[in-house]
Amino acid sequence: MTELAGLKPQHFIWEMRGRVATIRLNRPERKNPLTFDSYAELRDTFRALVYASDVDVVVLAPNGGNFCSGGDVHDIIGPLVGMDMKGLLAFTRMTGDLVKAMIGCGKPVIAAVDGICVGAGAILAMASDLRLATAQAKCAFLFTRVGLAGCDMGACAMLPRIIGQGRAAELLYTGRVMGAEEGHAWGFWNALHDADALEDEAQALAQRLAAGPVFAHGITKTQLNQEWNMGLEQAIEAEAQAQAICMQTRDFERAYRAFVAREKPVFQGD
Amino acid sequence: MTELAGLKPQHFIWEMRGRVATIRLNRPERKNPLTFDSYAELRDTFRALVYASDVDVVVLAPNGGNFCSGGDVHDIIGPLVGMDMKGLLAFTRMTGDLVKAMIGCGKPVIAAVDGICVGAGAILAMASDLRLATAQAKCAFLFTRVGLAGCDMGACAMLPRIIGQGRAAELLYTGRVMGAEEGHAWGFWNALHDADALEDEAQALAQRLAAGPVFAHGITKTQLNQEWNMGLEQAIEAEAQAQAICMQTRDFERAYRAFVAREKPVFQGD
Amino acid sequence: MTELAGLKPQHFIWEMRGRVATIRLNRPERKNPLTFDSYAELRDTFRALVYASDVDVVVLAPNGGNFCSGGDVHDIIGPLVGMDMKGLLAFTRMTGDLVKAMIGCGKPVIAAVDGICVGAGAILAMASDLRLATAQAKCAFLFTRVGLAGCDMGACAMLPRIIGQGRAAELLYTGRVMGAEEGHAWGFWNALHDADALEDEAQALAQRLAAGPVFAHGITKTQLNQEWNMGLEQAIEAEAQAQAICMQTRDFERAYRAFVAREKPVFQGD
Repeated sequence: MTELAGLKPQHFIWEMRGRVATIRLNRPERKNPLTFDSYAELRDTFRALVYASDVDVVVLAPNGGNFCSGGDVHDIIGPLVGMDMKGLLAFTRMTGDLVKAMIGCGKPVIAAVDGICVGAGAILAMASDLRLATAQAKCAFLFTRVGLAGCDMGACAMLPRIIGQGRAAELLYTGRVMGAEEGHAWGFWNALHDADALEDEAQALAQRLAAGPVFAHGITKTQLNQEWNMGLEQAIEAEAQAQAICMQTRDFERAYRAFVAREKPVFQGD
Repeated sequence: MTELAGLKPQHFIWEMRGRVATIRLNRPERKNPLTFDSYAELRDTFRALVYASDVDVVVLAPNGGNFCSGGDVHDIIGPLVGMDMKGLLAFTRMTGDLVKAMIGCGKPVIAAVDGICVGAGAILAMASDLRLATAQAKCAFLFTRVGLAGCDMGACAMLPRIIGQGRAAELLYTGRVMGAEEGHAWGFWNALHDADALEDEAQALAQRLAAGPVFAHGITKTQLNQEWNMGLEQAIEAEAQAQAICMQTRDFERAYRAFVAREKPVFQGD
Repeated sequence: MTELAGLKPQHFIWEMRGRVATIRLNRPERKNPLTFDSYAELRDTFRALVYASDVDVVVLAPNGGNFCSGGDVHDIIGPLVGMDMKGLLAFTRMTGDLVKAMIGCGKPVIAAVDGICVGAGAILAMASDLRLATAQAKCAFLFTRVGLAGCDMGACAMLPRIIGQGRAAELLYTGRVMGAEEGHAWGFWNALHDADALEDEAQALAQRLAAGPVFAHGITKTQLNQEWNMGLEQAIEAEAQAQAICMQTRDFERAYRAFVAREKPVFQGD
């Protein structure tokens, strides 16, 4: 296990409040695009989170009123044009590895989205566990507008499970903006908040989760992904095993003791 | 084949109206918790339903204004604390076996939910085929509140398919109550009814299904579960086979003859 | 590669506008039922579309105010009654092959639905990529009403992914009509339009897609189906490969050049 509290990333801002880490891209004048470097550093950070003893929940936050404008046209798309297949696949695999690292990091990730949230930025929101937004959030899976397919970083697999196959197909074929209200009605956004309340709400939710049985949260996250394409019977057996593991944690006993004593349980994450 | 009309369960109430069986937990003063014994008896009953010649549809009904408060804290959670892994896995497998038995019973199951519907009670509703509720229904997958993971009895697999991955993640990570209106808007509840109409509506729906081609209903249920994680092409072939089987039933011919004679078909379930 | 512009189908109407083909069943006095012959000709046409060099998008359009009334009772259901298993399976496989051909044709299919859209007609809408409708659209998966199961042509696999498992179960068990408004709220219909605007809207959407990166659209369609039952990690790798392929198209470069030149990209589909 390692500690990440002192992390000094070069390509994004890293803040800790208690056991909640907040990640914030840091080129607000460009609406926070991703670059080769920030992709790689985000991927490595989410990989390190698996072993982080001091972080229980991650918040992806906006900066300067925008979340993320996706892959930078000059820094990323330009170099990709004309690159050979080996180079292209290395790039698309790296972007996919970021999503795999988010999914595999073992801690809930909450996206707090204001303003622009497009391309790979929309993917970062999609690959989070929970998603809060403002009425100004503009989310677009706009790969088609740059001549590409909707199948970017897992979108053809994940987006249909979140908002339904027909709505996902529309967003991926047309690249159109999903408005905040429709994104909420469709289940993409868990809740909408005013812009000046968004980060407080995300922090409050993150702190609530961090005060919960975080070992069990990690198992919840594992199983949500692990059972993605299991048969129903296999998923039920997998949950029997996973929940039996959780029943041997002290947090389970703490909850029981607190209930009997008519107190509020204080979870410790073990 | 066996008959279940005379079933005398010890741990729940069993009522038959025509070919519809109603199951009702029977500790209304405690909001109908589950116990080791009632879990096992429910599991065995759903297993027996596969071979029941006199039951075509099952209704899970409330009692005293509540559906089910989940695993009893004193009767279940207490003994689990400190139990060894062999015992814990035997328990979680038994609870999972109840869901497997509901899924595999071959007859539509309709949950009629009023009041408290939490923990394993929420799972009973989730594992039903159709779900009716009242505005007072309080449904919570509250495993996290007792220190456990959201992966209980198939919830991480089934809940996302019913209400979407993002909403399911929120309910499973936070354990919060899903209100009746939002549960309806999200597709968890098929319909909301007044408390004094709930059971009549559930019975009416059940009797309509029981008056339908119940052999074919059983195939619909089988395929909804069987195709859970099939590829699309495999699912289409599986349906070609399954529907061809149904085309050899007399109910298919009865429907055709009735149509030609401009009459209403009378299905017999064979 | 072949050209389909001159197609002269016997059992439906085929129209071309630019690179958009419109298919319209042609028995409006019977609300456009399907027959053995029209099933087979539709299947063969969608199979030919894979190799069509002059068609990029397909619209399924209504005729005489109705979309499709499903398998004809006299022409199809009558002969099926009493047919032996070999014949029945040949029929159900042929209908399934139509869905497989729609899914596999490599071009987006847009259903424009007015009036009756039931049985196999509902399946045609379901198996399309995008679905527009009018407030008068009456969509019912009414197989149960003719004594059959809901598992027809992929419905138990596809419908739950579009509208959620619980709503799909209700429609498949009861055969009831899904109203236009609820179908829109549930994500079955992407949008509702006035009857006199429906076809123009469908054409406009189709032409927009045809003016896009159609090679990439084909990959989007492939991946939406290909990843249906993949694990998440496998889906992400599959998308890395598929998107790397798209990055070698000239349309990707065209989009980049247009962006740099502050122009609108003109996609060519290669």
